[in-house]
Amino acid sequence: MYELGVVYRNIQRTDREVADKLAQYGSATVHEAMGRVGLMATYMRPIHAGAQVSGTAVTVLLHPGDNWMMHVVAEQIQPGDIVVAAITAPCTDGYFGDLLATSFKARGARALVIDAGVRDVKTLGEMQFPVWSKAVSSKGTIKATIGSVNIPVVCAGMIVNPGDVIVADDDGVVVVPRALAARTLEAAAAREANEGEKRAKLASGVLGLDMYKMREPLAKAGLKYID
Amino acid sequence: MYELGVVYRNIQRTDREVADKLAQYGSATVHEAMGRVGLMATYMRPIHAGAQVSGTAVTVLLHPGDNWMMHVVAEQIQPGDIVVAAITAPCTDGYFGDLLATSFKARGARALVIDAGVRDVKTLGEMQFPVWSKAVSSKGTIKATIGSVNIPVVCAGMIVNPGDVIVADDDGVVVVPRALAARTLEAAAAREANEGEKRAKLASGVLGLDMYKMREPLAKAGLKYID
Amino acid sequence: MYELGVVYRNIQRTDREVADKLAQYGSATVHEAMGRVGLMATYMRPIHAGAQVSGTAVTVLLHPGDNWMMHVVAEQIQPGDIVVAAITAPCTDGYFGDLLATSFKARGARALVIDAGVRDVKTLGEMQFPVWSKAVSSKGTIKATIGSVNIPVVCAGMIVNPGDVIVADDDGVVVVPRALAARTLEAAAAREANEGEKRAKLASGVLGLDMYKMREPLAKAGLKYID
Amino acid sequence: MYELGVVYRNIQRTDREVADKLAQYGSATVHEAMGRVGLMATYMRPIHAGAQVSGTAVTVLLHPGDNWMMHVVAEQIQPGDIVVAAITAPCTDGYFGDLLATSFKARGARALVIDAGVRDVKTLGEMQFPVWSKAVSSKGTIKATIGSVNIPVVCAGMIVNPGDVIVADDDGVVVVPRALAARTLEAAAAREANEGEKRAKLASGVLGLDMYKMREPLAKAGLKYID
Amino acid sequence: MYELGVVYRNIQRTDREVADKLAQYGSATVHEAMGRVGLMATYMRPIHAGAQVSGTAVTVLLHPGDNWMMHVVAEQIQPGDIVVAAITAPCTDGYFGDLLATSFKARGARALVIDAGVRDVKTLGEMQFPVWSKAVSSKGTIKATIGSVNIPVVCAGMIVNPGDVIVADDDGVVVVPRALAARTLEAAAAREANEGEKRAKLASGVLGLDMYKMREPLAKAGLKYID
Amino acid sequence: MYELGVVYRNIQRTDREVADKLAQYGSATVHEAMGRVGLMATYMRPIHAGAQVSGTAVTVLLHPGDNWMMHVVAEQIQPGDIVVAAITAPCTDGYFGDLLATSFKARGARALVIDAGVRDVKTLGEMQFPVWSKAVSSKGTIKATIGSVNIPVVCAGMIVNPGDVIVADDDGVVVVPRALAARTLEAAAAREANEGEKRAKLASGVLGLDMYKMREPLAKAGLKYID
Repeated sequence: MYELGVVYRNIQRTDREVADKLAQYGSATVHEAMGRVGLMATYMRPIHAGAQVSGTAVTVLLHPGDNWMMHVVAEQIQPGDIVVAAITAPCTDGYFGDLLATSFKARGARALVIDAGVRDVKTLGEMQFPVWSKAVSSKGTIKATIGSVNIPVVCAGMIVNPGDVIVADDDGVVVVPRALAARTLEAAAAREANEGEKRAKLASGVLGLDMYKMREPLAKAGLKYID
Repeated sequence: MYELGVVYRNIQRTDREVADKLAQYGSATVHEAMGRVGLMATYMRPIHAGAQVSGTAVTVLLHPGDNWMMHVVAEQIQPGDIVVAAITAPCTDGYFGDLLATSFKARGARALVIDAGVRDVKTLGEMQFPVWSKAVSSKGTIKATIGSVNIPVVCAGMIVNPGDVIVADDDGVVVVPRALAARTLEAAAAREANEGEKRAKLASGVLGLDMYKMREPLAKAGLKYID
Repeated sequence: MYELGVVYRNIQRTDREVADKLAQYGSATVHEAMGRVGLMATYMRPIHAGAQVSGTAVTVLLHPGDNWMMHVVAEQIQPGDIVVAAITAPCTDGYFGDLLATSFKARGARALVIDAGVRDVKTLGEMQFPVWSKAVSSKGTIKATIGSVNIPVVCAGMIVNPGDVIVADDDGVVVVPRALAARTLEAAAAREANEGEKRAKLASGVLGLDMYKMREPLAKAGLKYID
Repeated sequence: MYELGVVYRNIQRTDREVADKLAQYGSATVHEAMGRVGLMATYMRPIHAGAQVSGTAVTVLLHPGDNWMMHVVAEQIQPGDIVVAAITAPCTDGYFGDLLATSFKARGARALVIDAGVRDVKTLGEMQFPVWSKAVSSKGTIKATIGSVNIPVVCAGMIVNPGDVIVADDDGVVVVPRALAARTLEAAAAREANEGEKRAKLASGVLGLDMYKMREPLAKAGLKYID
Repeated sequence: MYELGVVYRNIQRTDREVADKLAQYGSATVHEAMGRVGLMATYMRPIHAGAQVSGTAVTVLLHPGDNWMMHVVAEQIQPGDIVVAAITAPCTDGYFGDLLATSFKARGARALVIDAGVRDVKTLGEMQFPVWSKAVSSKGTIKATIGSVNIPVVCAGMIVNPGDVIVADDDGVVVVPRALAARTLEAAAAREANEGEKRAKLASGVLGLDMYKMREPLAKAGLKYID
Repeated sequence: MYELGVVYRNIQRTDREVADKLAQYGSATVHEAMGRVGLMATYMRPIHAGAQVSGTAVTVLLHPGDNWMMHVVAEQIQPGDIVVAAITAPCTDGYFGDLLATSFKARGARALVIDAGVRDVKTLGEMQFPVWSKAVSSKGTIKATIGSVNIPVVCAGMIVNPGDVIVADDDGVVVVPRALAARTLEAAAAREANEGEKRAKLASGVLGLDMYKMREPLAKAGLKYID
């Protein structure tokens, strides 16, 4: 249940350096580094392929067909933030287009993650403002009902607290709680450290079966080869 | 309920100049200009990003798994038309490929909007023939049952009358009834006229809150800021 | 019902030349050449547009959230193979990423067709390793339960036997049983042979109505023209 | 595209006797009698099994999350009518509950067909007021925006004109255009007339293969029996 | 993001009397009484119609295909509780059947609300143990991975904190936060108080248009009647 | 890929006694007894609750919108059979109604399992002929294209071979391969044998935690209790 009609102005953002560094590892590695949790529903897709970002979440709660609070959240954006928009009921309307993107960008936002639709996607691509959304829709919205800014929200099935880190790329959107961000960064770096070596081995034809020493546990689990 | 087995040869197309000029405003602006109505279901997606077209609708009603009438509608196409294809029951088969596209293009069609599937999408992209569809499918169709051409149809949830204007781009597909086209064009132009100025202001950091004078109505609606 | 815990090492692959030549005709033509059967569900989409491949199927049966057998199937890959992965229950997890792709590629695999999710899609695009999947997801998998390799599987609604030919492109994924491959290749070639001539006629403005002599059967079926 | 903000008070209802008599044949027979057209999407389900009704359509167009016009349409109901409610964009909110049902019933309505959600379904069952809907939802609606009453609407994929006949039962909802109602009633009666005899034959063990003389056409179509 | 591997034994339950009294008003009235928020996704349906309950939430977080924690949560149940089960990723497996229901019932549980599947539904009906779920499935689960008990969870899109009140009936499932329960009970009672009078008026033929004095605001909004 | 146009008249049915005895254990227990495999997709639902059957599969492959082969399969039914109907592409049409049910019943069929729609569901309930289907639809079908009878088919994601056992109830539909039927029956009986004792213990308040000795493995897995 949400607290309606409030804007929290002072939120505790994850340390900027930590938040920024997570981008390079991508959502899949970060997701693994957290113990395979934190991923939003897979229907959240980038409107254009290729972007890979991380940033601190400012959250906004909107009503179906009403984007009034998008203007309210704009004021709370600080450079390095990613806006996370949740809706109180399922909706695919186009809440966000090139004008709002211009404003968000001017405030320093890195991206939008929205559990609804957006529009002007061609222009958003030209502006290089990355968006992850559930839908694309020309359908506009009204400005009639207030929601909230910077409260904890549920976006695409995940709880997002203001100040958490969002990591998003072509594979999806991952939420890293503020308290776990530093530790996750370390774990992600460690995971990636030995990937280069593994890749080289596999490229040379070494099998994962041998590299990961899987033959014995597979046999133990009962796997049988038949010629 | 549909009238089956008829081809209306003389339809009243929207004035060509009006129909052509609507393209530049795009589906989102045109949708707003009509009062936020007229949008087809958001599952209608372009098979390739980037096209932005408008044109007069010639309609065709097809049966599931049967594209016979696509050849009948081809003859009714005039330069500047967009073919709108409805199906009598849900179907994702590939009704349309490169051969039909060649024929449609030769007749002067600008695009196809189909509440079903298409195929040869790579070639359609190379031919630069834009298509909005519900699905992509290799599955071919038969030619066994007759439908109708240029009757009013329901395509992706919207009624389309022959001669109406179709505006389609990466954001979706909007239907503008013939009787409303001129007025919609004006409204769209008016909307766009002051967008440049707004964009410049927002880009300079002015907030929508101030530009649209939202602070007072938000406070009145009960919005509270908490530090 | 599946046989679990077995790896068939010796499978009868379709003749290499036949399997290779089917690629050029694409999934739509091959699907027609087989009599409009063999197409996987249309939710199977390429993660990147543009690839068009054919190859011999090696199959793998996996459990939800568990990609252990992907390492087992890697060893069974021969140059020219396409890996077809089925899951015992619906799952969208990311079973496959850049490391496995490196290994599959080193073994000579041409593509992956998986009735689940994959990740690292940006890197997979850079590696030019084509994948058709049901989803994209950062969500990783575990390695705990054994499935099988090279048994007949159901992938996206189609039965695939090891050694069958897979033809995949932007239009979808078609399965050609080994016993029908040679005959299908001939039929596909025959279909394509007269497409050039048809295309030229249609491009010149000749109607399908006349080229296919449809006017009489349409009239017979009751089609009426109204002026 | 819809005409907004209008209530047509004088509509031409299908002849009462014809409209009433169609109920007994049920949606499947009526659908066949019209040539297999007129069926709403199969997601339209009765909230309680067992009701079988027909009546004349009064239509209402609503906005997402707003049921204001339900009170407007109530006044236009005449005994023997069925209210058909369409929404301008997909919505599953609960537009209708026991209070509105009390009012509709008092006005003589026989049923509601709504392309959205309803609530108080237990009470509606006790009241024996039949409803066909897309969803059940506790979520209430507001009363803020006007739509229209007795204009042609698209409900669950079908065009419904005010005064058309609605036939609904456990199998679904069929729309019979006013102009076709009398002829459809005759065709439905004719279909049903010889069903009793057929049923008796089939119950005695006679096969459809023989009763419908299908063996020859099946053999001609190439069917082969293998022992 | 969830805290894994913990069981909170001491939770603050909503006052028993308040929690118990909410049942009689049903999910629709309670949802309205909270200001139209708090409803779980409409895919949460009762496995048998007719039950109407309220109780205090004990929560459990499970992994896909793994119901081990169902046995852990059983021990934390107190008479009057409703178990709310969330899953870390979408899953339709049957987590719960007649044995677990026997145990839950023996502990005093009133119902189960689960964002996944259940089985033995016929027996559950005979036992009169109410369940709201996303699916019914024979598919069993394993007991391999630990989750948590009595942490805040997201179930069918809603945040549920242990000790909150759950109100569930044929219309859906509503979550009432502990802090709002007393006030919601009052509001629900107030809403219901004047429903009887309204119902009587509507039953006598008085229109909502008049009872709610809607004619003037409708005219002001631009509604036009056409004869 | 399917063999089209053939009817296999002599199939090897599972031993009648084994096939008949599986019904009493229900789909959930049988599914467990096979090692948690063999379940059709959960969208397969009974059209009426309460039936619990088992029988030997006769299979039929149909085309979208065409039920011609239903009459062909009727002749192949023997007492104790369950008809399993697969379609070559997704379809929700109503392939089966009261007349075919009369014929199937006269031949001794116990039930129909169909990966598509059925109609006349009220009458089917009165006839007590159980059906599991994907949809209910008034939409009729034609009789134009031949499929096959008694070939292996994919129905709702599962391979069904003619002669396999089908076990279906309110929890879903399970396929037991002929070769595994006797062994599965034993395993199911063994599973059920000690359920009575377990149920009594749980009813008396004993926890699964203790009955299944889970406390130690849970602690070992890291579960922590917090007061």
